[in-house]
Amino acid sequence: MATLVLLRHGESEWNALNLFTGWVDVDLTDKGRAEAARGGTLLAAEGVLPDVLYTSLLRRAITTANLALDKADRHWIPVHRNWRLNERHYGALQGLDKAATKEKYGEEQFMAWRRSYDTPPPPIEKGSEFSQDAEARYADIDGGPLTECLADVVARFVPYYEQTIVPDLRADRTVMIAAHGNSLRALVKYLDGMSDADVVGLNIPTGIPLVYELDADLKPTVPGGRYLDPDAAAAGAAAVAAQGAK
Amino acid sequence: MATLVLLRHGESEWNALNLFTGWVDVDLTDKGRAEAARGGTLLAAEGVLPDVLYTSLLRRAITTANLALDKADRHWIPVHRNWRLNERHYGALQGLDKAATKEKYGEEQFMAWRRSYDTPPPPIEKGSEFSQDAEARYADIDGGPLTECLADVVARFVPYYEQTIVPDLRADRTVMIAAHGNSLRALVKYLDGMSDADVVGLNIPTGIPLVYELDADLKPTVPGGRYLDPDAAAAGAAAVAAQGAK
Repeated sequence: MATLVLLRHGESEWNALNLFTGWVDVDLTDKGRAEAARGGTLLAAEGVLPDVLYTSLLRRAITTANLALDKADRHWIPVHRNWRLNERHYGALQGLDKAATKEKYGEEQFMAWRRSYDTPPPPIEKGSEFSQDAEARYADIDGGPLTECLADVVARFVPYYEQTIVPDLRADRTVMIAAHGNSLRALVKYLDGMSDADVVGLNIPTGIPLVYELDADLKPTVPGGRYLDPDAAAAGAAAVAAQGAK
Repeated sequence: MATLVLLRHGESEWNALNLFTGWVDVDLTDKGRAEAARGGTLLAAEGVLPDVLYTSLLRRAITTANLALDKADRHWIPVHRNWRLNERHYGALQGLDKAATKEKYGEEQFMAWRRSYDTPPPPIEKGSEFSQDAEARYADIDGGPLTECLADVVARFVPYYEQTIVPDLRADRTVMIAAHGNSLRALVKYLDGMSDADVVGLNIPTGIPLVYELDADLKPTVPGGRYLDPDAAAAGAAAVAAQGAK
């Protein structure tokens, strides 16, 4: 039986400021670092010991994994990083305040951009303050996308999962994926066979390992997996759902 | 022209306590973390931007690399970890105080264990407090060595350099190796063609990037390479040489 551990990064500087972040490479807050370390403590306490790590190319996921694995004494495992695990690119919304955006465009448009499955925000302008198209790390994908909806994230992440991560699971390795709210929503949708409509209501809390035990067909033995701290996870998911309300 | 960056980890808890460490997986001190971050600042300031990272399996080298690369905005590069980059295994000396060891065994024996090319300390007892033979990370090498001299480190590290790291250099990548005093001495001996006698006097300071530009034959264009902070490097090397004196 294969084990897959999903870990959303701890609170980032822009989570704390309630800004749309996307591919902007912000750091963790001190609270986020503490969340990451606690995630590692939970892994160690439950004996869930990753054999291999996958991360996005973004600092907040990379640092979360570093801190969690160090705490779990698994800092030495092999690491693979790929842009396909990145957060959804938020297009022209990157750098904007969530509450102000909601006020300006209205609840309906705001929720469509944030949570609908197939409505991307307007594309970001190349070379603008919060675009990444000139960054060296995305040179081999021509600077990357200029905006994405969740369907786009599914389309770029799931093939990587199937082709690159699944072989590790088939080799009975415990795989940890340190990533982002929307890239993990994309993967959970795929793993749990959620509909496009149902995934709209799915929120993933920060810093709490979500463990999937997978059967021989790599289907979850428990739909939705198991959070290592279910009470904190429920509170965290509610907090994510409330973003933009303030 | 290929660029190779060598980075010895910052001060560890056992550096600070003046204990023989070897494969014992101690953490960095706060001073060591600051050294690592400063190493990254030096890399960024000099425009030496690693494309790929190699580390040992030991926390002090891994964390040093994480902190330095984060500071240099290169946290997202590919990572490879291998036991062949580990510090020299100090055998039965692991966990002993350097000054007390020198007093007990005398200057000559002490220096032979610390710095002679081919005199390993007595082997560590399997299953003893400071042995690693039961650790999961060394399961695929049968628990690893029980002691090593510098010649043993050369024998296990240089083939890995030639077979695994050199292809990255040949592809014009800037390669960073985050490792340890003696594994880096082994590599520098090889790169600079130092004799077994000459390497005895070589000391590598902590936390200061040592940059080798390599020619088409992957020979150093400047013997000994170039420290990014030469004054601090000279002071640091003198401090390493003086260890055990106090």
